[in-house]
Amino acid sequence: MRKVVYGGATSLDQMLARSDGAVDWLVMDPDAMKIMGEMWPRFDVMLMGRKTFTHSMEQFSEEDLKKAEKMKGGMRSVVFSTTLEPGERAGYEIVNTDAAEFVRELKKEPGKDIMVMGGGELAASLFEAGLIDEVGFNIQPVVLGTGIAAFRPISRQIDLELIECKVMKSGCVYVLYRVKN
Amino acid sequence: MRKVVYGGATSLDQMLARSDGAVDWLVMDPDAMKIMGEMWPRFDVMLMGRKTFTHSMEQFSEEDLKKAEKMKGGMRSVVFSTTLEPGERAGYEIVNTDAAEFVRELKKEPGKDIMVMGGGELAASLFEAGLIDEVGFNIQPVVLGTGIAAFRPISRQIDLELIECKVMKSGCVYVLYRVKN
Repeated sequence: MRKVVYGGATSLDQMLARSDGAVDWLVMDPDAMKIMGEMWPRFDVMLMGRKTFTHSMEQFSEEDLKKAEKMKGGMRSVVFSTTLEPGERAGYEIVNTDAAEFVRELKKEPGKDIMVMGGGELAASLFEAGLIDEVGFNIQPVVLGTGIAAFRPISRQIDLELIECKVMKSGCVYVLYRVKN
Repeated sequence: MRKVVYGGATSLDQMLARSDGAVDWLVMDPDAMKIMGEMWPRFDVMLMGRKTFTHSMEQFSEEDLKKAEKMKGGMRSVVFSTTLEPGERAGYEIVNTDAAEFVRELKKEPGKDIMVMGGGELAASLFEAGLIDEVGFNIQPVVLGTGIAAFRPISRQIDLELIECKVMKSGCVYVLYRVKN
């Protein structure tokens, strides 16, 4: 069955972004780009919550979005939202169905792996439902102090098995875990 | 000047303990013990907040406490509390002075490095005051979901430089950073 991977770049205090969604603190590391580039072909669906989507849209220029569109290739991109009108927007599929239910069905379909880009709320609902198979973070050498947390309170403990750990010249530490379900 | 090091064992979601203070989820790793054993001689003072102290006292048996006392050696151990009576208790020095002020003075005194055992509240007040010089965590392969957070909201960003990263057979990842003050 295709795997669901939750990942991204985080601070040491496990923030995905500043409170306003800014990611200006991210270290641009060629090693991280390489890892991302190697991982990319695993996936053919990208999932995100509405806030991550909105922040991304607000934060990046038209130019950035074109690059993102190019990088994304033909990848199906799904945004879970209870407030946005369902439908297509800038190449993204907006859905307002229950995320866990949607992902459960998606995993049954044939295809490559599924990437959860964030944020923490979407990940929490998928962790609760036992739908995440791998967790991969590039931990940056910074404590943000406040921000958008990668992990939200959930009612269950998630046991992990370390698959890989790579230390980068920039001081970033990339960790990839398998979820022991 | 002697350095202040904040460290401990955390889950991937950066919890130091479960909500009730339990640390039953910690992986007992001989490599981690070795790192701890190598670090120990750096320190001659150990600092902790009242909650960490109380949880430790409640959780460990008389036997454990004797072992801890032995491991601690002659190390000065200071507990910051606004509720406990100042004075000495089970070899621990209870103080109710402002932690930042106390640590600022302590750093001026001659001596070895100073270890902040936790918890997050004490560390936050010391981060705010710019008094922490190194951060070292042994990240365990688990997401606790809820618990006592190692990092509390602070008003400033703490930039770090990775000193060391060790991957253990158990899947623990030990990271040590220098704070760029």
